[in-house]
Amino acid sequence: MVGGYAGKILEIDLTTRSLHETPLDYDEARKYLGGSGLAAKVLYDRVGPEVDPLSPENLLIFMAGPLTGTPAPTSGRHAVVTKSPATGIFAESDSGGTWGQALKWAGYDGIIISGKASSPTYLWVKDGDVRIRDASHLWGKDSYETDDIIKSSVGERAVVACIGPAGERLCKLAAIMNDGYDGRTTGRAGVGAVMGSKNLKAIAVEGSRKPSIVRRGELLENLKTIIPQIKEYMVAMTKFGTGNGIVATEASGDMPIKNWRQGSFVEGAGVTSGQYMAEHYLVRNYHCASCPIGCGRVIKVENGPYKTAEGAGPEYETLTALGALCLNDNLEVIMLGNELCNRYGVDTISAGAAIAFAMEAYEKGMISQEDAGGLDLRWGNPEAIIGLIHQIGKGEGLGLLLGEGVRIASERLGGLAPEWAIHVKGLECAMHDPRAYHSMATGYATGNRGGCHLQSASYLWERGPQAFKTAIPTMPFEWYEDRHGLENKGKLTVNCQNLMSVMDSLKLCKFVFNGRVGIENFANWTSCITGLDISADELMEAGERLYNLKRMYNVRHGISRKDDTLPSRILSHKRGTGGSAEFLPKFGEQLSEYYDARGWTEEGIPAEETLRRLGLDFAVKHLPVAARI
Amino acid sequence: MVGGYAGKILEIDLTTRSLHETPLDYDEARKYLGGSGLAAKVLYDRVGPEVDPLSPENLLIFMAGPLTGTPAPTSGRHAVVTKSPATGIFAESDSGGTWGQALKWAGYDGIIISGKASSPTYLWVKDGDVRIRDASHLWGKDSYETDDIIKSSVGERAVVACIGPAGERLCKLAAIMNDGYDGRTTGRAGVGAVMGSKNLKAIAVEGSRKPSIVRRGELLENLKTIIPQIKEYMVAMTKFGTGNGIVATEASGDMPIKNWRQGSFVEGAGVTSGQYMAEHYLVRNYHCASCPIGCGRVIKVENGPYKTAEGAGPEYETLTALGALCLNDNLEVIMLGNELCNRYGVDTISAGAAIAFAMEAYEKGMISQEDAGGLDLRWGNPEAIIGLIHQIGKGEGLGLLLGEGVRIASERLGGLAPEWAIHVKGLECAMHDPRAYHSMATGYATGNRGGCHLQSASYLWERGPQAFKTAIPTMPFEWYEDRHGLENKGKLTVNCQNLMSVMDSLKLCKFVFNGRVGIENFANWTSCITGLDISADELMEAGERLYNLKRMYNVRHGISRKDDTLPSRILSHKRGTGGSAEFLPKFGEQLSEYYDARGWTEEGIPAEETLRRLGLDFAVKHLPVAARI
Repeated sequence: MVGGYAGKILEIDLTTRSLHETPLDYDEARKYLGGSGLAAKVLYDRVGPEVDPLSPENLLIFMAGPLTGTPAPTSGRHAVVTKSPATGIFAESDSGGTWGQALKWAGYDGIIISGKASSPTYLWVKDGDVRIRDASHLWGKDSYETDDIIKSSVGERAVVACIGPAGERLCKLAAIMNDGYDGRTTGRAGVGAVMGSKNLKAIAVEGSRKPSIVRRGELLENLKTIIPQIKEYMVAMTKFGTGNGIVATEASGDMPIKNWRQGSFVEGAGVTSGQYMAEHYLVRNYHCASCPIGCGRVIKVENGPYKTAEGAGPEYETLTALGALCLNDNLEVIMLGNELCNRYGVDTISAGAAIAFAMEAYEKGMISQEDAGGLDLRWGNPEAIIGLIHQIGKGEGLGLLLGEGVRIASERLGGLAPEWAIHVKGLECAMHDPRAYHSMATGYATGNRGGCHLQSASYLWERGPQAFKTAIPTMPFEWYEDRHGLENKGKLTVNCQNLMSVMDSLKLCKFVFNGRVGIENFANWTSCITGLDISADELMEAGERLYNLKRMYNVRHGISRKDDTLPSRILSHKRGTGGSAEFLPKFGEQLSEYYDARGWTEEGIPAEETLRRLGLDFAVKHLPVAARI
Repeated sequence: MVGGYAGKILEIDLTTRSLHETPLDYDEARKYLGGSGLAAKVLYDRVGPEVDPLSPENLLIFMAGPLTGTPAPTSGRHAVVTKSPATGIFAESDSGGTWGQALKWAGYDGIIISGKASSPTYLWVKDGDVRIRDASHLWGKDSYETDDIIKSSVGERAVVACIGPAGERLCKLAAIMNDGYDGRTTGRAGVGAVMGSKNLKAIAVEGSRKPSIVRRGELLENLKTIIPQIKEYMVAMTKFGTGNGIVATEASGDMPIKNWRQGSFVEGAGVTSGQYMAEHYLVRNYHCASCPIGCGRVIKVENGPYKTAEGAGPEYETLTALGALCLNDNLEVIMLGNELCNRYGVDTISAGAAIAFAMEAYEKGMISQEDAGGLDLRWGNPEAIIGLIHQIGKGEGLGLLLGEGVRIASERLGGLAPEWAIHVKGLECAMHDPRAYHSMATGYATGNRGGCHLQSASYLWERGPQAFKTAIPTMPFEWYEDRHGLENKGKLTVNCQNLMSVMDSLKLCKFVFNGRVGIENFANWTSCITGLDISADELMEAGERLYNLKRMYNVRHGISRKDDTLPSRILSHKRGTGGSAEFLPKFGEQLSEYYDARGWTEEGIPAEETLRRLGLDFAVKHLPVAARI
């Protein structure tokens, strides 16, 4: 037997209200691992270019990995995969918390949703028992309320993933929230809108069927050493959360400020940092399942105009997207904004990007105070930030435009607005700057879901090179030792993307690295859990396979080099101050190096031999005619 | 009185068949000089964004400069200005020969054509007498035939500008030809299609009213010194034409080979050079009016499959576009191709680019031999080159697609084809490579008519820096002394564009430079001819004004930084061999430097203060809202 996996995938057609359990194909599982990898294969096989992302024919796939629900550190995660209504291409988004663990313990590796319910619906899955329930009473409720109401019906031990009002209205920034007030999120690329398009409000899960762990003793022995190491290395993360490095981030030039225009925000960084939050607002830490770190924040603002519930506090991305990016140094505003985004079910990165975009359009006279429903959108204005989040969440006023994402919004505004829309392939760029960490240039440009930092996360290597020697031990140190070095950064991106594909499939958190942990450990844990003999090389090759599979999904949708680009502001605007004042990535050459390292053509298309080498022969028929020569 | 100018502009509305003479506004003439500058002002005032380029509302403006028709060396030129059907934005194209001189001598600085004739028509203009004549018998005739037929009717001293069959069919590559078998051309941006859209086959002109030259003695004294210098410096140009440098061009990496993919074409360059042509096919030189150089070729192929008439031979651009770009080393094929393009009235640069594009699409399996009407489009195949020119010229088969230009053709082909379409803003790039002469990166990217080499011509400075010190004496030598240097190239482009704007308005040829000649001479000649006291500074400021005026025309059409880009092949493909094997321009930074030097915003929009400084206050109201802050 193979451990780790539940061995079954649940399929639900909401149109016909039919349920189906498919036994896991373990050959496929070994090849595509699980999580976003295995889900990508399902999407590849069943959702072609002809499918509209918001039509019943699109699939919404929730998928755990073989490590989810096991003691492997930081494995409390699951992925959501679908075709994105925001970008029109491949989408994956992943989340921590306990929902993935509950899914696995309920007996499933994944749930594949197709069709569209005739009226609002939620699913209740408990230990192999699946119910399709009416959700009329939940429609319009925010994510925290929805969690409360469902639990009051099915019991407190259930874990709920749900959409808020934004997802119901098919807002392109809509997220799927899980774990209620703890505010875990599959946030990116509009996955919440797909859930809304299916009239699916929530999926509540509960389980007691822990997966088998074949070589449990060996695993626990390994963890006895490694977990204390992780804890020790991650102590700042535990104490101050992901915002712990925000002052250093500002100092390095990594933090995008004023819609990516400004180089410094020294005082603002200080008072929006994880340290400042811990000192003034932290109630307690939050740990995702099997996490020894606990970077999650539970905060509360008790007084003043920006009172919050006791619940999830903002992560680094949110601190910056609703903070520096909008030139806002009011942490209470960020914390309330974060809660509102969670309640409405809106991605905080894209929301912050949309607000910063609107502020720039306002500064430049293309949006008036009247357009903004009376809000004064000057940079950093707290009322504007809170007000726009309400408008986006409710789909009112300017929020209707901004809720389409900055690409569409800028095209509709016309004029120069597309020049200030900071996105790649329609996904708003995350809060790490390729002018500070040059490998992020290809990281964003070639991210399979668009402008995402987590699909390569190579800024981590360039930020703390010494600590990342163990992550991929075979990767030369000189590829990442100099963050402003111009050579080898394309190759760095390739390797990091492959590793991230592995982690997104096994389901591990990007914060597990600690100067000792790396791909060798992941292979060891996976081998112990599954009982298979899986090497680091096999995993890295699987990561490469998955990255190519997702790329081919996009290639079928017309993606090529012309789409692998960056906003000109990032390519050519020197900010003049801060830790990367005068640096720019050497983008064209980095991209060519990247393609070369990937075995892709100059046009950014996987070569046939690359696909065959990786066992993706079935994808050869989807190569553009031109790439088959 | 002011000399040089004729003092009158002829306006013809072909819809109503009405004629009107407008006295030249000498204040406007001093501000916008003449040629493409003065015509740009007319277009700016009268053809807004709402006008379809092929509608009767578009204007087709022929304009001489104050030097046209005078003894000023290389002044035998005129401009055609219109809104381009190929790019949708500002178009200017200019030509040598004797047509511009004849126009001036006929008593006009320019002719502005509006409306659309109800049936094929030509104009006959002789010394202030203007006739609108039936051209039904000319419709379908090629440009050489048309020249013959019109002259047999109005006399041999007439000079004819006309379209061939391509212009009649509104082909986007259509040129306006002049001077019959001597094959002079306003080739670029589809100006011939605009003429065709007006049912205007030709304009024949003849005149005997030479313009007055106010300080004739001083001018002739100056020319007595300068003309021998020009002749001496340009001796290779006189002997071997513009193809004289083709071997050096190949060696430097400036020559685009195999659709911009290949770095070397040593043997091919040798047998398609001006030297080879002079040795084997040259009948005699051709001199445009007032030209001491005579780079024009009259050639004849007497035997074999590629026989030509005795007529215009190919220039450097044509030698490369129909040669190296298509991997063709058969000079006879180029010479016949050139004649066919002239006869059909097709731009040879864009035709060569379209053929190379088709060959790449064929290589990569996106165009079949059947699609190509049985032609085997393998690289360099003579039958394919000649065959495709016929198809483009006649609008048959694949020619219908290619005749739209590579931007549209690649979009219609879909797949990866846009990756191989080498154009800027819809205009196929000329035959000079920014990987060899880095300033050409911004030269192409910011060219007001798209991917044109002549709107900056800064490769001349980078190619022969010592000889260009006198062109703009105030420009620092270090801006252009190193062709692969990465600094100052944006500023170089700005200055060269301003100078070229002056030359395109006074009407001087880009080959007048000789290591002694420069802006000081142009100011002197213009002052002597007009009698005004015009300094080099005034001219350079006029050049800057004109470049901004044309930019503003494009800004009104939605152009901004997002459009100022280059094909990724040029930005990032290292060719690996040849004289610029590993060099790439630093594009993003060069563009920012360029905008800065221009006084434009980061988005590529002229700042209000820039417009006001240049006396373009009327254009401020056309700034995008966002640029008015």
